[in-house]
Amino acid sequence: MPAKQPVAIVFDTFGTVVNWRGSLITELTAFGRERNINADWTALVDAWRAAYHPSMDRVRKGELPWTKLDGLHRAALDKLVADHKIAGLTETDLRHINLGWHRLHAWPDSVPGLTRLKRRFIIGPLSNGNVSLLTNMAKFAGLPWDMVFGSDLCQHFKPDPETYLGTAKLLDIEPGQLMMAAAHNNDLANARKCGLMTAFFPRPGEYGPHQKRDFAADQEWDVVGTDIGDVASKLGV
Amino acid sequence: MPAKQPVAIVFDTFGTVVNWRGSLITELTAFGRERNINADWTALVDAWRAAYHPSMDRVRKGELPWTKLDGLHRAALDKLVADHKIAGLTETDLRHINLGWHRLHAWPDSVPGLTRLKRRFIIGPLSNGNVSLLTNMAKFAGLPWDMVFGSDLCQHFKPDPETYLGTAKLLDIEPGQLMMAAAHNNDLANARKCGLMTAFFPRPGEYGPHQKRDFAADQEWDVVGTDIGDVASKLGV
Repeated sequence: MPAKQPVAIVFDTFGTVVNWRGSLITELTAFGRERNINADWTALVDAWRAAYHPSMDRVRKGELPWTKLDGLHRAALDKLVADHKIAGLTETDLRHINLGWHRLHAWPDSVPGLTRLKRRFIIGPLSNGNVSLLTNMAKFAGLPWDMVFGSDLCQHFKPDPETYLGTAKLLDIEPGQLMMAAAHNNDLANARKCGLMTAFFPRPGEYGPHQKRDFAADQEWDVVGTDIGDVASKLGV
Repeated sequence: MPAKQPVAIVFDTFGTVVNWRGSLITELTAFGRERNINADWTALVDAWRAAYHPSMDRVRKGELPWTKLDGLHRAALDKLVADHKIAGLTETDLRHINLGWHRLHAWPDSVPGLTRLKRRFIIGPLSNGNVSLLTNMAKFAGLPWDMVFGSDLCQHFKPDPETYLGTAKLLDIEPGQLMMAAAHNNDLANARKCGLMTAFFPRPGEYGPHQKRDFAADQEWDVVGTDIGDVASKLGV
């Protein structure tokens, strides 16, 4: 157990709490079969996620005005559908596919682990997703958040310090009373620079066969566990 | 049942979901007895609440810069403690008393009624309280919110339209897909002006012997019930 306990724990979501890759591939493969639309849906999903950081960085650097993640996802999807020459998708289809990021399934330990942590701590997502995306995802996957810290609240994407520090400010606590939990070492490194506590657990299946990093903790984080349930145990709940 | 259903229902909190007057009088009376501090705690609570609208109006009119409700509560408390000549309170005591607004008890039907509504709708408080106040209150009283719409998110107090419309925007829904639920007719009238759906139920004990209004609906709101459970029934959940 760490020497002190946080007041609140906020979670990265994509990859950390929900299995975005498996969820999207499963949904799109079923959609393609049902609608008889031919495409390499797995390749589309991987390329879609690859566009994630570059598109947020354009906002972070001021090349684009503030845009919700839903909007960035949609712009990337439109380009990829053209690049991959996927034919037969209507505007309604594209909207439905884009909202697939609102319908991601939790990893098996997420809901029971979060439910345990919620007994003692304030819990919420601290994600680059927007409030509507994260709220709909929570309803879909049964995530028992106390509060949803979407990136549209402060109009910044991680790793901008405004995201970590703005969350502490909204909760009226010191950065050191807030713990960032993630399956990504770089998210934790940025949270630590802002004074937050940190918890790591790996999600070795997040990127499927393409996973290249984050198989283990690369710093001495305040808590290191095997999954969210193990983090709860290590925090004594 | 109304002709259409909302996507999300947001609740006024003080008086509508929690019994602020009864909770504060009980807590402060016990505190005074324990600490042997003499005061008319009931009069203090009533005067404290009477300062609520005038102090928010000073922010709304630009006479004060944006201030969280916790800050307005504290300024009013300091003045009232002096006016009522209450002696013996330390700074720690004053902070503790001020955070009494984070420790309000729910009306008996609130948690079961909200739990039913949460099955079908996104639910949250839309309150003049700040995020930390509302989040702590939810933990204390067991309120099962999906998301907490504190006034510090848009830095406006109700009835500014930014509060009602900003909530719809964060949820990415039309104002007409959002329902405001309150025990106060004027809150609903302002929400309706912004295009929201409305639900009313009375809380005739909110102000104790001083209650002067809101014993019944004064417009044809979309739903009128006897309490939150009855609103759930009228919405078919």
